[in-house]
Amino acid sequence: MKTDVLIIGGSAAGLVSAMTAKSCNPDKQVTLIRKEEKVMIPCGIPYIFGTVGTSEKNILPDAGLEKLGVNIVIDEVLSVDAAAKSCKTKKGDTCQYDKLIFATGSLPQLMTFIPGYDKENVFTVPKNKVYLDALQEKLNAMKKVIVIGAGFIGVEISDELSKKDKEVTLIELLPEVMATAFDPEFSKLAESALTERGVRVMTGIVVKEIIGKKAVEGVLLQDGTRLDADAVIMSTGYKPNTDLAKESGLKLNPYGFIEVDRYMRTNLEDVFAAGDCAEKREFSTGKLSKIMLASTACAEARVAALNLYELATVNTFRGTIGIYSTNIGKSSYAVAGLTENMAKADKFHIVTGSFSGVDRHPACLEDSSPQIVKLIVQKKSGAVLGGEVYGGKSVGELINVIGFAIQANMTVNDLLVAQIGTQPMLTASPAAYPLIKAAEICAKAMK
Amino acid sequence: MKTDVLIIGGSAAGLVSAMTAKSCNPDKQVTLIRKEEKVMIPCGIPYIFGTVGTSEKNILPDAGLEKLGVNIVIDEVLSVDAAAKSCKTKKGDTCQYDKLIFATGSLPQLMTFIPGYDKENVFTVPKNKVYLDALQEKLNAMKKVIVIGAGFIGVEISDELSKKDKEVTLIELLPEVMATAFDPEFSKLAESALTERGVRVMTGIVVKEIIGKKAVEGVLLQDGTRLDADAVIMSTGYKPNTDLAKESGLKLNPYGFIEVDRYMRTNLEDVFAAGDCAEKREFSTGKLSKIMLASTACAEARVAALNLYELATVNTFRGTIGIYSTNIGKSSYAVAGLTENMAKADKFHIVTGSFSGVDRHPACLEDSSPQIVKLIVQKKSGAVLGGEVYGGKSVGELINVIGFAIQANMTVNDLLVAQIGTQPMLTASPAAYPLIKAAEICAKAMK
Repeated sequence: MKTDVLIIGGSAAGLVSAMTAKSCNPDKQVTLIRKEEKVMIPCGIPYIFGTVGTSEKNILPDAGLEKLGVNIVIDEVLSVDAAAKSCKTKKGDTCQYDKLIFATGSLPQLMTFIPGYDKENVFTVPKNKVYLDALQEKLNAMKKVIVIGAGFIGVEISDELSKKDKEVTLIELLPEVMATAFDPEFSKLAESALTERGVRVMTGIVVKEIIGKKAVEGVLLQDGTRLDADAVIMSTGYKPNTDLAKESGLKLNPYGFIEVDRYMRTNLEDVFAAGDCAEKREFSTGKLSKIMLASTACAEARVAALNLYELATVNTFRGTIGIYSTNIGKSSYAVAGLTENMAKADKFHIVTGSFSGVDRHPACLEDSSPQIVKLIVQKKSGAVLGGEVYGGKSVGELINVIGFAIQANMTVNDLLVAQIGTQPMLTASPAAYPLIKAAEICAKAMK
Repeated sequence: MKTDVLIIGGSAAGLVSAMTAKSCNPDKQVTLIRKEEKVMIPCGIPYIFGTVGTSEKNILPDAGLEKLGVNIVIDEVLSVDAAAKSCKTKKGDTCQYDKLIFATGSLPQLMTFIPGYDKENVFTVPKNKVYLDALQEKLNAMKKVIVIGAGFIGVEISDELSKKDKEVTLIELLPEVMATAFDPEFSKLAESALTERGVRVMTGIVVKEIIGKKAVEGVLLQDGTRLDADAVIMSTGYKPNTDLAKESGLKLNPYGFIEVDRYMRTNLEDVFAAGDCAEKREFSTGKLSKIMLASTACAEARVAALNLYELATVNTFRGTIGIYSTNIGKSSYAVAGLTENMAKADKFHIVTGSFSGVDRHPACLEDSSPQIVKLIVQKKSGAVLGGEVYGGKSVGELINVIGFAIQANMTVNDLLVAQIGTQPMLTASPAAYPLIKAAEICAKAMK
C-alpha cells in the first residue's frame, strides 16, 4: 500500500487529522489505519452505561471520512521505519507514506500496586467497544459497583451507573472529587450533587486491597473497612499509548508523551503527533502537562493536519489550556486553565474573584440555576490564568468564553469593559453577569 | 440636596453606573434619581405577558444599590445647569453634584404616520411598570392581538401572548422577522418556529391604517386585507430619551444620541452618558449605530463609572458589538457583530462559513438540538466581523464566545487553532464543533 498521508489511530485526533488533511489537500491520498471496527466517541463512553444505554449509539461515524474520500484501513501498525517512510502492519501489509501522523491515543492506567488489581471483574475504561460491551453485559447482572478514582470519568460513570439503580461507591484518594481539575469549593458542590443522586462518595480514602477469591468480592480500605462489591471499575487515569512511537525512534518526554513542536512536528522529519499521545505544555507556564482531552486532541489534530506540507497557520499552541466540563443532573461544572491551587503551586502571585448569580433573569424563570464564576488572575498584569464555573447547562459554552479570554491574553481590564450578550431565557442578567462581576472583584483585589 | 455622583435614570445603565461608581468610590456619595417606584428588568418585559406572568416578578431589585449605600431618589430631573453643576427636580428639589451620568434610556417609537395610531387599545412597550400593568390587565379580556414590528421585542411578545392563548398576528414591513439583526436563513428558522407555536407571521406587509371607531377594531393592510383585532401593540423600535440632555447643553448626534468619547464622557466637563441614550459606534466600521441593548448599556455604564474621577481603564470601546439573542420554544437565535448583509452593505470584502451540527454528542442525547454557526470574515485579513448561531439554549453563551473572538480581534487563523472545551451533555462534539468547522469553511474560501 502507498499513501501520501498516513494516520495511525481512529479516535478524536485520528479522525480530525484525517478529515483536515484530506480537506486541505484534496489531491493527496489520506489513509487512516486503526484497530477498531467501530470507534467510540471518547467522551461519550460514561454515558453508554446510563443515559445513552448502548455503545451502538456512541459511535464516531465514518461518514465524514468516507465523504471526503479518506481511505480507512482496519489493521494495526506494528513497526515504523521512519527513514524508509514505511510501516508494517499486523495483517502483513507494508505501507509507504509521505507524511505520518501518530494519533495513537492513551490507555487506562491500572493501579497495579493495589493487591488484587488483576482479579476477575476489576475493569478499566478503555476506548474499546468490544471491552466496553463485555463490561456493560457483565454489569447488567451486578448490583454493587465500586469505582476507584473520582476524576471526570469516574464521576460520570458513577453517576450513570447510579441512574441504572446500581449501588455505586466512588472512592477517591484525594480530599475531593475532581480535585486535580477544580478548586475545593467547586469539587464540594459536585460531591453534594453526586450524593444527592445516590452515589456514595468517599474521599481521602486509600484502597488497601481488592479482595475476593477468583473474582472481586469487595474492597478493603486502609482503615480496615471492608466494602462489598460485585465489580470494581478503576478510573485512575490514562497514560499515553506511545510504545510504537518509541520503537519508531520518536523522542518521548519524561511523562512518556511524544515530543512535538508548536506545529505538532516530532523529532523525525515528516512525522507528526496529535492527541493524547502527543506532548502538551501548560498555557500559562509552559510546563509539561499531562492533560488529555478530546477537545485538545481535536485542536492538535487540526494544527498537525493544517501544517503537513507547509506552515499554514501561525500563533498556534503557546500551550494547552485544559478546558473541562461535566454535568451531574441539574448542575454542571467547568474549568479552563489554572485553578487557584494550581496557580499558587506554580508560584503565581494571584488574586481571585468569585461571584454567585443566576443564569436566567428574572431568577424566577423555570429552568434557572445558580451560577458561580471564579476567576484566577495574575495580580500585577491582570492576566486571566483560569476560571471555574458552576451552573446549569450553559456552563459548557460559558467556559469557552473564559477559554477565549485566556487564549486572547485578555486581562481583568478587558473583562471590565467587555461586551457580552444577555437574554432572560438564556443567560444571567447583564447587570449581574457572574463573569464580569468576578472580574470586578479581581480588579478591586488588584489595587 | 448635594451628592458627589448623580445618576439620572434607574434602568440597566443607571443601576450599573450607580453600583460601579459607589463600589469604586466608597467614600463618595452616589445618588440615583429615577421616576419609577419600581423598575422593570428591561429584557424581561416580553415575558411578563406569558412565562413570568406578572411584572411583579420582573423587578430590578434595589437591594444591590441599598447594600452599597447608593442614595435612591424617586423624582424627575427637569433641568440641568451643567455650569453650576446643579439640577432641578419635579418635586422642587435642587441637587448639587460633582459628576453627572445621564442614563435616561429610550422611549418607544410610535409610528405616527400610520393613521389610527392614537386609537384606544393601540399600545407600545415602554419600560414603565404602571403602563405595562394596565396593558396586561386590558389584554386579559382580549383575544385577538396584532403586533406590528417583528424585532426582538415584537417576536418575544408575540410568542408569549400566544402562550396565553391569544390569537396573535405579527406583522413586519421587512421581508423577514428580526431582519435587521439576522441574515435571512436565520430569520426564516425563527419564523417557522413562531408559526409552529401558533403565531401568524406576516412579513413584507405594509400596514395602511389602524381602524375602529374610538377603539381598535382591526388593521387595514395596503393590499386591502382587513384583519380584526382587539388590540394593536406597536413594537416598532425605540428612540433615545435625550430631550433633557439636549436642553442641558449636551451635544446630540444625528440620530439623537448623546455624543460621547470612549470613556462615555460628553461634551460637557464631568458629565457622562451611558446606555440607550448614549452614542454608539459599530465595532468594525466606527459608523454611528442605533444599537440599544441592556447588555451594551451595562458595559457602557461600567466604563462611565470606572472612569469618573480618573481614566482607570484603557482600551475600552473601540465600538459597540451588537450581541443579541432570543429564544422561541426549543430554538434559540443569537448574533454578534455584523451579519453577511450588513458587512456587504458596508462594502466589506467578505467570506462566510456556515456549519450545521448538533449541540450534544452523541446526537441521540435527549435534549440535543441542531446547532448552526455562521461566521462572517473579512477575506484578506481573516478578521471575524460577525457570527450568527441557531440552536438550543447554549446559544446564549456560545454567542459570547464569538463576541470575545471579535473583541479580541481574533482571525480565522486563531479560530482554526483555538482550544475549546466540549462535553457530551453540554456541547457539540470536538470533532464537529460548529464554530470551528465554520472557521474551516471560511479558511477555504479565503484561499
